[in-house]
Amino acid sequence: MSSFWNSKINEIEPYTAGEQPKDGQKVIKLNTNENPYPPSPRCKEALLDFDMSTLRLYPNTDSKAVCEAVAKVDNVKPENVFVGNGSDEVLALCWQTFFEKKENTGKSVLIPDISYSFYPVYSDFYDVRAEKVAIKEDLTIDPDDFTGRENCGIAIANPNAPTSICMPIESIRKILDNNKESVVIIDEAYAAFAEGYTSAATLIGEYRNLVVVRTMSKSYGLAGLRLGYAIADEELIEGLKRARDSFNSYPADRLAQTLAAAALSDREYFEKTRKAVMDTRKRVMQELRDMGFTMPESGANFIFAKPPVSITAETLYKNLKAKGILVRYFNKPLIRESLRITIGTDEEMDELVKAVREEIRNVQES
Amino acid sequence: MSSFWNSKINEIEPYTAGEQPKDGQKVIKLNTNENPYPPSPRCKEALLDFDMSTLRLYPNTDSKAVCEAVAKVDNVKPENVFVGNGSDEVLALCWQTFFEKKENTGKSVLIPDISYSFYPVYSDFYDVRAEKVAIKEDLTIDPDDFTGRENCGIAIANPNAPTSICMPIESIRKILDNNKESVVIIDEAYAAFAEGYTSAATLIGEYRNLVVVRTMSKSYGLAGLRLGYAIADEELIEGLKRARDSFNSYPADRLAQTLAAAALSDREYFEKTRKAVMDTRKRVMQELRDMGFTMPESGANFIFAKPPVSITAETLYKNLKAKGILVRYFNKPLIRESLRITIGTDEEMDELVKAVREEIRNVQES
Repeated sequence: MSSFWNSKINEIEPYTAGEQPKDGQKVIKLNTNENPYPPSPRCKEALLDFDMSTLRLYPNTDSKAVCEAVAKVDNVKPENVFVGNGSDEVLALCWQTFFEKKENTGKSVLIPDISYSFYPVYSDFYDVRAEKVAIKEDLTIDPDDFTGRENCGIAIANPNAPTSICMPIESIRKILDNNKESVVIIDEAYAAFAEGYTSAATLIGEYRNLVVVRTMSKSYGLAGLRLGYAIADEELIEGLKRARDSFNSYPADRLAQTLAAAALSDREYFEKTRKAVMDTRKRVMQELRDMGFTMPESGANFIFAKPPVSITAETLYKNLKAKGILVRYFNKPLIRESLRITIGTDEEMDELVKAVREEIRNVQES
Repeated sequence: MSSFWNSKINEIEPYTAGEQPKDGQKVIKLNTNENPYPPSPRCKEALLDFDMSTLRLYPNTDSKAVCEAVAKVDNVKPENVFVGNGSDEVLALCWQTFFEKKENTGKSVLIPDISYSFYPVYSDFYDVRAEKVAIKEDLTIDPDDFTGRENCGIAIANPNAPTSICMPIESIRKILDNNKESVVIIDEAYAAFAEGYTSAATLIGEYRNLVVVRTMSKSYGLAGLRLGYAIADEELIEGLKRARDSFNSYPADRLAQTLAAAALSDREYFEKTRKAVMDTRKRVMQELRDMGFTMPESGANFIFAKPPVSITAETLYKNLKAKGILVRYFNKPLIRESLRITIGTDEEMDELVKAVREEIRNVQES
């Protein structure tokens, strides 16, 4: 509390990111869904080719090179792409562009009650009324629950977090069809890891009200670069640019633009690393299930695993932390019985499995 | 206009940045106050030493290395520093943290009527009432005009833009003394170019209500890197972090943090390049004055020059543009008679002076 902060800053509860280890602390970090593999070697090449003297000049406001690279990958026009300083910034700008403030409307933006925990924070910070739509007991989202409910917008993470569950594109289509007056945000931060998933970006051109949000943090191994983007109809992109230019005209720096475009161009490396993560995921899920864990099929680079009855998620989280393995525990109804575990390298996951096995043996013996 | 944009995005008039030349277009660019010199060679070294594999991990949320480098330069504690994605982002977060929304107060934030044109945009975008305080006819700011006026905050650029005029620290002290209940932002984007200026940052520790905002875009030749920071009492820094964490927890990427810290550490290069800009400025001012221009003493890396009666600022702006020289013209009362001209290299300024001389000769002959 401070008399120098305005009333919003005094009352808001900011987002809490996953814990970052202190300098020099050796941990196995499976708590913030980072990619265990470094970015494409083309990023290093781009860095070595980079002309430092250009840094004295402002970057391209639209991150043109990135828009063009995304357009190629997703078969859209560069004009359908909006680039920001991480997908968190892109999402924040979506809230400020498409969702009406509560002083102007009685309507709410619909978000799943279990989802990316930044959504309610944005709603609060930008004075947008949010209505939480309950997910099912099996942790899935039912598209019918987003039908016939008056709203001023919808935001859904697909795959969802922390559940890891991916909705098929038919469900997204249903939500779009039933909410043609509202902007529907599909946050595909983790979609690259969903086996056989058809991206909502394939519906651009068909739906004027769709915004697909992506990040390069997870599937391109570039969390440290801060680059996210939206794909949408040009009219929506124009709105995002109006918000950006009322806030910060140059969101992505020259190095970030250059490296992001390089990473996007390397499809072979992208496929190789996402497959490696998916292969590791498959194996680890089996090993945990063999120990009595239950978990939904994952479309993400993490799993949402419920330990066997002998040990609670909270205890396991704490004991793993004591062993230098960080996973994420959410002390919230419906999800406090499971742990969100990022898929690391095979070696890291071997350590995890070994540590979990020890913990379970310990409780069984005690 | 779009039915998918909210009412704010439909009505707002975004900030207009200075024109950027198109790809491959050869121009002398003196319109966005970029530094003519590249960043410190230490940035290149830092880039070559950079471990690409770290990019897979999120950056330090507080940009610790940058805070420490700033603390050293400005003789403050790292806890007094807040880092953002360019000073525009830092300013935007200041508006969202310290200034009360009009729905909650009848008070206004005070800004000079002639100043950085992003201030009124922030006020509009974040629903803060702004009261414009008239600058004097000689384009100076009188600190007494910021006394005895009820307000919920104050924001002043010092040196001011586009006038280039710098207030002495005694004036800032006066404003702080007379507004102890409000946060006072002193935006020192250009202060490194003010001869003999004592930064407002020297008052940190003495005033709890002071925020000094800086950018690395101008004086460090890093406009393309997007790095700005605020220096303030820890209580104010904590407020800024609450706003940041309600919006985007990782504003500065790993490369930007690394290069910014490297640039800040190189005091010799900083002094050398700012002196070069000031020397060029001195010479060019004299040459323009010899041609009949008038202008205030400049504390910035630009000058605000009024052409002799024979030619209007607007005509000169257009004719220079036709010759491939971009300067900035603001079609607004009180400032439409002058041009804001960035100080480039000596060669660029020779071209400018030559072109201006031709223009003036042309009108005299016609």
